[in-house]
Amino acid sequence: MQIYSRTEKSAKELADILSVKYTTSVNEIDENADIYFVAINDSAVAKVLPQINFNNKLVVHCSGSLPLSAIEKYSKNIGVFYPLQTFSKKREIDFSEIPVFIEANSTKNEKFLLEIAVQISRSVSVINSDKRKMLHISAVFACNFVNHFYTIAAEILKSNDIPFEVLKPLILETAQKVQEIQPEKAQTGPAVRFDENIISAHLQALNDFDEYRQLYMSVSKSIFNHYKK
Amino acid sequence: MQIYSRTEKSAKELADILSVKYTTSVNEIDENADIYFVAINDSAVAKVLPQINFNNKLVVHCSGSLPLSAIEKYSKNIGVFYPLQTFSKKREIDFSEIPVFIEANSTKNEKFLLEIAVQISRSVSVINSDKRKMLHISAVFACNFVNHFYTIAAEILKSNDIPFEVLKPLILETAQKVQEIQPEKAQTGPAVRFDENIISAHLQALNDFDEYRQLYMSVSKSIFNHYKK
Repeated sequence: MQIYSRTEKSAKELADILSVKYTTSVNEIDENADIYFVAINDSAVAKVLPQINFNNKLVVHCSGSLPLSAIEKYSKNIGVFYPLQTFSKKREIDFSEIPVFIEANSTKNEKFLLEIAVQISRSVSVINSDKRKMLHISAVFACNFVNHFYTIAAEILKSNDIPFEVLKPLILETAQKVQEIQPEKAQTGPAVRFDENIISAHLQALNDFDEYRQLYMSVSKSIFNHYKK
Repeated sequence: MQIYSRTEKSAKELADILSVKYTTSVNEIDENADIYFVAINDSAVAKVLPQINFNNKLVVHCSGSLPLSAIEKYSKNIGVFYPLQTFSKKREIDFSEIPVFIEANSTKNEKFLLEIAVQISRSVSVINSDKRKMLHISAVFACNFVNHFYTIAAEILKSNDIPFEVLKPLILETAQKVQEIQPEKAQTGPAVRFDENIISAHLQALNDFDEYRQLYMSVSKSIFNHYKK
């Protein structure tokens, strides 16, 4: 029906794809919608939402970590619509494979959200705010932190004039492996073998990368702790 | 020509696939081979190799971190054949996509190894021992440490009765993304947005997982440091 963004370019881009109108002014947000999706930074929610009159229509945020209660001041009908995926504007993603997690303040609102969610995803479930936060934390480990380790690997390679290309098959196989095998059972490498010779050689070789040496030690220790059990 | 392993089951399994003989006794290792591949733990190399008479034939180890010089005592012809991948017995892998890194103590031995490597892989390059070690370290970050973060994510989910299944599309997309986009540019999540509200909420929620809380802090700080530059 309508897209709002404070940035005209962003508003127009999405509105054009959906063939709907757009605005960059909160005062011009259409008051006749059945549902409002709030897809903004968690910290912006408390700043932007008080400016909008939702007429107690269903207001839904899309955040992993914000509790449902964070938006209870803004409408009598509230919910959460949390798609568990990493989004970059340049990547097209098959939405039907993205798990969507739903929460709402009434059975009626929950049912409405479930009906919308199953239109776009094959995996939809109801989850409460506490569990959603833990889900988000697990996603931070499995995606954001993982990607940072790709970045560290790329940096180590670059400083040795080795192209990042060589790691791509390994990265893909590591992710594909845990689609079939539990990650705990898929673990390989010097730390899980308690191979102290290799580990100390690696720590020495990371002399120029103090921060990464610290991370190497912490994560190796965590692997030790996990497998000595 | 022949497989040696100290474990009969392992020796037989591989020998049967290759239709060759096998042995579990170092004394019975055939002395007429052109090349010997040593695919054992780094720490076992110095224990096992002195027991074998290689007649100065080409002896090749397959380790990321052992320097070429680690086997110079055992033959006048030595080399390294390092396939960069994570191997588990249960997973079948397309070897043609695995980058293979070669090193040898003579041009002749290097050429021989290159000729063998291109029979099984489409990506073969010569690399020295120091660079191979850095390559191995980058693989530890991009594979072993990444997989440990999958394990941590799985544990956090399990303690909240959420199936690991829900993370699989995210894990796959995170790996697929960096096949096309540089990991540095693919980064998402609270740390790269410097979203301190979410981070402190996550740290609090990880109260029952002291070790993972420490890791969450260290990796988030490393992400800060990287993106504030």
